[in-house]
Amino acid sequence: MKILAFDTSSIVASVAVMDDDKLIGEYTINHKRTHSQKLMPMIEEVLESCELTMKDIDVVAVAEGPGSFTGIRIGVATAKGLSHAMNIPVIGISTLDALAFNVAFSHGLICPILDARRNQVYTAVYKWDNGNLSMIEEHMAVSIEELVDKLMQRPEKVIFLGDGVATNKIYLIEKLKDRVLFAPNSMKMPKAASIAELALQKAKEGNLKNCYELLPTYLRKSEAERQYEEKIKRCDKDGACEG
Amino acid sequence: MKILAFDTSSIVASVAVMDDDKLIGEYTINHKRTHSQKLMPMIEEVLESCELTMKDIDVVAVAEGPGSFTGIRIGVATAKGLSHAMNIPVIGISTLDALAFNVAFSHGLICPILDARRNQVYTAVYKWDNGNLSMIEEHMAVSIEELVDKLMQRPEKVIFLGDGVATNKIYLIEKLKDRVLFAPNSMKMPKAASIAELALQKAKEGNLKNCYELLPTYLRKSEAERQYEEKIKRCDKDGACEG
Repeated sequence: MKILAFDTSSIVASVAVMDDDKLIGEYTINHKRTHSQKLMPMIEEVLESCELTMKDIDVVAVAEGPGSFTGIRIGVATAKGLSHAMNIPVIGISTLDALAFNVAFSHGLICPILDARRNQVYTAVYKWDNGNLSMIEEHMAVSIEELVDKLMQRPEKVIFLGDGVATNKIYLIEKLKDRVLFAPNSMKMPKAASIAELALQKAKEGNLKNCYELLPTYLRKSEAERQYEEKIKRCDKDGACEG
Repeated sequence: MKILAFDTSSIVASVAVMDDDKLIGEYTINHKRTHSQKLMPMIEEVLESCELTMKDIDVVAVAEGPGSFTGIRIGVATAKGLSHAMNIPVIGISTLDALAFNVAFSHGLICPILDARRNQVYTAVYKWDNGNLSMIEEHMAVSIEELVDKLMQRPEKVIFLGDGVATNKIYLIEKLKDRVLFAPNSMKMPKAASIAELALQKAKEGNLKNCYELLPTYLRKSEAERQYEEKIKRCDKDGACEG
C-alpha cells in the first residue's frame, strides 16, 4: 500500500511516500511559512524522483493538527482535494502523536510542545512501552506552567520536542532540572515519514476516511472565532449590536 | 554554522542542510541505486528550496562508510570536490554511528546492521546514556552468528536497523527472542540529518579535515583487491605469473 503523507502544521513543510514497510522518499523544508506555494511542488518533486504519479498512491495522509491554523488548513485542504480527485481514502494523523513517534523506543516520557500563542502550548504526554507508543496525557491546550505541574507529579525523565521548546527551554530546565532532555535537532520538528508510518497502522486497522469526513483538529478556537464570540457576548450584554 | 551533509552509502540517497541547531532541509530518496545521477540534483534542489547556494555552506559532511563501496566512493568524491572547489573543510561520519543516532534516547542497545555480502554484516553496538550515544562494540565486519554471540552475552533489549535487517530478521528473532526490537520503517535507513548533527558536534570540537585528508572507511577489502591478493598469493606459490 503506497501512502502519500504531508505535514504543514508548523513552519516546516514535509512530504513523504511510504510503500508498506519501505520509506521511498521524504522531503522536508524548514524555511519560511509559504506552504501554499511549496506543498504541491514538493509532492511533485518526491513523486517524480521515485518514478511515481498520483495514480500509484492508494491513501493520502495528513497532519490534522493541532498547530498553525493556516498551516493545518493548507494541509487538510490539499489532502481533501487529492483524495477527491483521485477517489482514494484519506487519513488524518495528530501532529502531536507524529512528533512523539520521531523519538521511537525512547526511555522516559515524551512531551511534544507546540507554540499555541496566547501563553499556551498544544501538548500531550506519551511513553514507549515494549515497542508501542501509548498516550499518558490526552491532547490539550494549556499554559506551560500547567503542563509542568502535571509532569512534576511523575518521576520519569521527559524528552521535549516541537516548535514550543525554544521559548520554554529555560523554564523547563529550571523546574524539571536533570529530568529534562531535548530531542536532537534532526528530529525535533515534524517529519512526514512519521505521519506516513502512523497512517499505515491506521490503514491496516481499516481506519480510513473519505474526503468529506476528514476534519482539522484545532484543539482551540481560532482568533477570529474567539473575537466574534466576545463581540456577540458584549452585544447581548449591551443590547442589540448593528452589523 | 551551515553544514551540507549527505549519505550515499546504501541504496538510499539523502541530503540535509543544518544551520547550528536548526535542520533547514532534508531530502531522502530510497529508489534505485543511481546516486551518481541523483546526488548533485538533490543537493541543488535542497539548497534552492532554502534560498541558499554553495557559497553559504561552511562545512561539508559525508557518510564515510562502511556500506556499498561504490556508494561511499560517490559520496566521498562529491564531498572532496565540493570542499576543494569552495575551499571549506569536510567531515566524515561513520554510517553506523549515524544510523544509531536515528533512534535517539532509546532504551537498551542499538545495533545497526548493513549487508556486507559474503555472509557478513557491517555492524557496531551502541547505547544511549543520559542523552549521550556511546559505542559498546567497535565497528566490525562479522557474520550474523558472531554478532548474535556477542549480543547474547548481555541482558539488554536490542534495537536493530539498517539494510541488513530484512535478510536476518527471522534468525535474530529465533536467537534473541523477545529481546529483539526493529526500528520503525521511517528511521531504519540512513538519514543525512543524522550525519549533519554528528558532524556539527565534530565541527564544534574542531575536528575538521581538508579535502585531502578525508578517506572512506570500507572496513573490509573490496572484491577486486581481495581477488588481486589471492592471485598474487597463488602466483607466489606456483612460481612467477605473467600479466
